[in-house]
Amino acid sequence: MQFHQTELTLPAFNRGFHLITSRVEQALPEIAEISSGMLQVFIKHTSASLSINENADPTVRQDFESHFNKMVPENAPYYKHTFEGPDDMPAHIKSSLLGASVTIPITNGALNLGTWQGIYLCEHRDYGGQRRLVISAFGN
Amino acid sequence: MQFHQTELTLPAFNRGFHLITSRVEQALPEIAEISSGMLQVFIKHTSASLSINENADPTVRQDFESHFNKMVPENAPYYKHTFEGPDDMPAHIKSSLLGASVTIPITNGALNLGTWQGIYLCEHRDYGGQRRLVISAFGN
Amino acid sequence: MQFHQTELTLPAFNRGFHLITSRVEQALPEIAEISSGMLQVFIKHTSASLSINENADPTVRQDFESHFNKMVPENAPYYKHTFEGPDDMPAHIKSSLLGASVTIPITNGALNLGTWQGIYLCEHRDYGGQRRLVISAFGN
Repeated sequence: MQFHQTELTLPAFNRGFHLITSRVEQALPEIAEISSGMLQVFIKHTSASLSINENADPTVRQDFESHFNKMVPENAPYYKHTFEGPDDMPAHIKSSLLGASVTIPITNGALNLGTWQGIYLCEHRDYGGQRRLVISAFGN
Repeated sequence: MQFHQTELTLPAFNRGFHLITSRVEQALPEIAEISSGMLQVFIKHTSASLSINENADPTVRQDFESHFNKMVPENAPYYKHTFEGPDDMPAHIKSSLLGASVTIPITNGALNLGTWQGIYLCEHRDYGGQRRLVISAFGN
Repeated sequence: MQFHQTELTLPAFNRGFHLITSRVEQALPEIAEISSGMLQVFIKHTSASLSINENADPTVRQDFESHFNKMVPENAPYYKHTFEGPDDMPAHIKSSLLGASVTIPITNGALNLGTWQGIYLCEHRDYGGQRRLVISAFGN
């Protein structure tokens, strides 16, 4: 059984949902050496998150942004943690709703994703800046 | 350390939340060979998802369906991705809220779930059809 | 490749969000033996959950409690599973929104978390009592 791990720094992305599948694959070429295993991508932040969803139509990602802004609004009257700006507390909540990591099976040296699946970086801050990922893969 | 992996095609389920624990266990009998390890179940779709929740009372699963339909409604005025039907965009959002995979510890050759825990297939489309899972288990 | 696993019983926590990072680390000292690997924490319950979020300001955790109570209210008119009290069905839904496990990379014998990340126990019941966790770590 082999285990590989690397860190990847993503450039600053705009607030919203962004496909990063090929960036992840390129950061860990050892995926190709694994016939049967798993990949984990972990984000080292609490105001951005990772998810797996539709990889084709950009309006899906726009609708994610619209819906999460409604479901977790800025300036809710019950927020106490407000000193980092109105986008901060919603970013923390969205981050836990979506999660800090995705784990994907590896089969025959490649991610075993469905045809329409891609990895999303979910940037919840207005100016989140660079984001650091830890990418781990293991298997036979 | 051993690593086992298989794919399982589920039959079409009605929109809603369904227990699939025993289907998963039967698909990978090698779980019994692992004294200490982990199981991952991954769904290769973006409009259905997996979760772990209460395995006894069917009304829990009905309440999940009711609540998710309210929290992520059809025909929200801000949806742009509408050409696949009113159930499609909410299905994508629900899928990311719940997640594409569950990972469960294996102890002494069996899933180490709590007494009341089961694996849910969460079917978010009206006619989702068959769904494909990748099931991986590893450990000593 | 090594694999370690243990169970940890947490004392009863009040309803709300609580940092448990150091309890998890202390329960599995073998983390220090892993140069490159992964840790999983799994909760064996369906009315409490685990998440990763901000580890410094207590008002973040208070705002989580406020927001989840609004997003998943008690006494929704469509709940059918009501016989275990008004806090029970919301607890199940919150538990699936946040998830039953967190998985964190291990690097150089320690959890590779971001500076501001901690592990949350999310107690969704008024009187949830003790909660049991399964903690697994593996790698080289």
